[in-house]
This record gives sequence, structure tokens and C-alpha cells, in this order.
Amino acid sequence: MTRPIIVRTIAEMRQHVRAWKASGERVALVPTMGALHEGHLSLIRLARSHADRVIASIFVNPKQFAPHEDFDAYPRGEAADVEKLASADCDLLFAPAGPEMYAPGFSTLISVSGVSEPLEGAARPQFFGGVATVVAKLFIQSQADVAVFGEKDYQQLQVVRRMARDLDIPIEIVGGPTARAEDGLALSSRNAYLSAEERAAATALPTAMRTAAAAVASGGRIDDAEAAAVAALTAAGFRQVDYVEVREAGDLSRLGPGPIDGAEGRILVAAWLGKTRLIDNMAIG
Amino acid sequence: MTRPIIVRTIAEMRQHVRAWKASGERVALVPTMGALHEGHLSLIRLARSHADRVIASIFVNPKQFAPHEDFDAYPRGEAADVEKLASADCDLLFAPAGPEMYAPGFSTLISVSGVSEPLEGAARPQFFGGVATVVAKLFIQSQADVAVFGEKDYQQLQVVRRMARDLDIPIEIVGGPTARAEDGLALSSRNAYLSAEERAAATALPTAMRTAAAAVASGGRIDDAEAAAVAALTAAGFRQVDYVEVREAGDLSRLGPGPIDGAEGRILVAAWLGKTRLIDNMAIG
Repeated sequence: MTRPIIVRTIAEMRQHVRAWKASGERVALVPTMGALHEGHLSLIRLARSHADRVIASIFVNPKQFAPHEDFDAYPRGEAADVEKLASADCDLLFAPAGPEMYAPGFSTLISVSGVSEPLEGAARPQFFGGVATVVAKLFIQSQADVAVFGEKDYQQLQVVRRMARDLDIPIEIVGGPTARAEDGLALSSRNAYLSAEERAAATALPTAMRTAAAAVASGGRIDDAEAAAVAALTAAGFRQVDYVEVREAGDLSRLGPGPIDGAEGRILVAAWLGKTRLIDNMAIG
Repeated sequence: MTRPIIVRTIAEMRQHVRAWKASGERVALVPTMGALHEGHLSLIRLARSHADRVIASIFVNPKQFAPHEDFDAYPRGEAADVEKLASADCDLLFAPAGPEMYAPGFSTLISVSGVSEPLEGAARPQFFGGVATVVAKLFIQSQADVAVFGEKDYQQLQVVRRMARDLDIPIEIVGGPTARAEDGLALSSRNAYLSAEERAAATALPTAMRTAAAAVASGGRIDDAEAAAVAALTAAGFRQVDYVEVREAGDLSRLGPGPIDGAEGRILVAAWLGKTRLIDNMAIG
């Protein structure tokens, strides 16, 4: 068990990274917004398997929240997060205050067209610009050799891959499998918003998704599988389904409406239980 | 006199830079679009005074040209450029082909609000997004310690400063003074488009600009000085004046209409002689 060094400034983080790299050590970065759970810790452990040193960042990024979204309410608790990072052998926690990340006069935005436009991009127009900008900054700030992101936010992972490749940032992007509760619900900091009743209903989301994925994998029509999943979620008490869609796994272009015909597919879902929006996804086949 | 190594790929450039840095050498980058003249060479020499190794890049960046602009006609001639770089002791020329810079599927744009919006940004809406994106790529590709840009493209210099600061790119940005012909005309690759008659008339641009700058520096009203410069350019045969404006030197916010009152000002001009658009600028006082 390593207690992470806690740093608040880019300069301090770079000093540590420079020293590590001078000793020939490979450095991994795991960007988070805190409120850490087992899903994050699995990414820290995955990062350790790719590198000698692991940095976690905690920054609740205002630029990826719209005004009506939950920026102020987003769960925060650094002390508990530090204990969890220690249990996962994280070497350094980068936890900057707002102005270290966005100094007065900040006015640069990185936007990624194509892969960022459907799904979460359609539901949350400012989201991926905010994500791409802060992630590019974290990559450049840390000079890490590898970065690990959860597949839970699959579209984010693909947007980050595209951004890093397009800007020639010399970093390897690794996706970590989604950690799930025993009933299949994907772990998420936003699950804390669910009432007991909503938490019980939430298990319908991974179930409907798995059923649809299996139907498509065995040759069923994509439009039928998507419609059945929407019906199952509605029946389980989800008050709105933003999307259930089978898309090409790399660029997230549309597949269907017929059978998948050998394409590499991913099913992605977003739906509301009361005031809480849940997302999930999985590979087809 | 050093003949520059010519490389076409990011990987080759990085290999040279890595070796130089491993020997403790500081590396400078001078981004250009080729068609080199004495103005560029003065930037190469300035770069050498800030670093042990100097990279020049030549890339006519399609993303900063609008469809109706002169991308296809933009002057190109690598062999002559290489001779000039050799005369200025440039160590390496990075001259990538289009797909090395923008691979198929490229879809990332870096935009800078505020400083990029007036003046050239108003006249050429896609311009600074294209500039910021390719310059960020060149910075990240080269991992240079310092980059030199001409003050001739003053707004570009300020946009690049803002972008590099906002994205935390660890590079020092240096502005080099504008090189001028004996009659005061700023050197520019686009001067090659001028007919003999237009070239003779062009000298009115630096003259009108200097006169306006002197009037403002000695306490005159900014609006009067700007109007007098527009009148002088029109009288000299410029067919259209896009702008003559005195602005704050850092963020390019508007100054005036009255006296400058101790602000740090810059006068910026863009005007057309026939089919050629000329730009220039200078410090007030």
C-alpha cells in the first residue's frame, strides 16, 4: 500500500514525472472526477499493469457540465478518495483547484466532430468539447506515457482516442472493462443519486442491454432489438429512454436497421430513472 | 553553413529531437508555409539565439484557407527554400505531406475565442481555427522548447500564445520583428502577387500606418488617426480597406475612440491592392 503524494499544481506534477522518467520509469495517468468507487480502482490497477508509476487526477470539470446539470451537486470527498487511491497503490494524486486548470482569460476549446456528435453529444451539446479540452490538458500537463479510461463511458473513450491521435499526443490510450454490481448495474458515481426503489429498478438496464446484444449477435434485426430494449426499460419504470443504439464500435457510425452482418458493433444505452440519468454499453458478440 | 536534414515524418523528427535533448540541447521551432524570404530567415536566426538546434517546418496548411482563398496558388518551391534555410544555419526541415499531418478520419479542431475573433478572424472565419490546430500539432510533434513567430502576423502570434498557455504546452513563444523592404513594405510571400504598379503603391500602407501610430502616440484621437489612414490608403489606390484599428496589444480588445491614455496599443491594418490582400501592424509608441 502506497499513500499517494498529493499535488495541486502542474509544476509539481511535472517535477515528479520528470524524475520518474529520468529513472527510466513509465508513467500512467487515470483521469477522474473523484467520488471514487471500485470501477475507478480497477482502472488504477490496470494502469499499474501498464506502467511503473500511476497518477490519478481528480478534477470536477466545469466545462463538461451544462448550466442545468449537476456540477454543484456532483459528489465530492477528497479524504475518502485518497484512502481508496492508497488501497490501489496510486503514486500521485493531481487535484488542482479551478484556476490552476482554467486561469483567468482561458479561451481555448478542443472539439472533435463525428464520433462526438451522436448519443451523449446529442443529449449534452457541451459535454465532449469540455471533456476533450480537459483531457488534452491533463495529457500535456502530465506527459504520461499511457492513460486509462473506463469503457463505461465508451463514447468518451472513443472521443479521447480520436483527439489524442489527431493532435499527435504521444500517449497510449487503454480502455478498462466496466465494473459492475452483482446484479449487473455498472458502477457509477451518479448511482448515489438513486433511491432504494430506483436502485432496484436499475438492474433492468444491463438486463435489457444484454438481451438486445445477444439478439443482434445471433443474427436478429438491430431495429427490433433496440425497440425491445426500449420497451423493457419503460416497463421497468424508466421514465425516459434517451437512446438504445447499436453502432460501429470504432467511429460510432449507425448500424442496422437489419442484421449486423459481421460489423464490429457496440450497443449503447442512456435512460432516466427519476432525476438520474444512467448510461451503459457493451460489445456485440 | 549547415545543410538542414530533411524529414517527412513526425517519427523521424522526434528521433532527432530526442537525441538532441538527450545531449542537453535546447530545440527551437520556426513554423512556416514555405516561399521563404528574408523575414523567415530573420526568424531562423532569432531562433538560433534562443536554442542550440533550429527546426523549420514547411506545410501549406489547407485548414487555414477558405475554399475561395489561394491554397492552390500559394507559392511553393522546396528546393529554393532549402538553399535559404542552409544559408541561415537551420538544422532540420520538417516538410510533411498532407496525410502525415491530417490522416484519414481527422476530426479535431482547436478554437480560441476572444483574441481570434476580430480583424483577421472577422475577415477569414476559418483561419485561426486552422492555425491554432496545426500549430498545436507542430508543438506536440516537435516537442520543441521554444517557437518563433513573426510579428508580421501579430494576431496569429497572440492567438498562438493564448492557445499554448491554455493547453499548458511547455513551450516558450517568441515574437520576431517584422522584416521590411527599403521602402517600408513588410516582407510577405504574398507580395509576389503584386504587379509592378501595385508594388509601388504598396508603400503607402506602412506610411499610413506609421503616421497613424505617431498621431496616437502623441495624444491624438484614435478614431481620427484610423480615418486618416483609411483615406490615405484609398487615395494611394487600395481598392478596399478591411480594417485600420488601434487595439490593446495583448488581447486585441478595442481602444479609443479617444486618446490612448497610457494603454499599450498596437495598430493593425488589412487592405487590398487589386487581388492581393496585404496586412501589417506596429506598436504604438
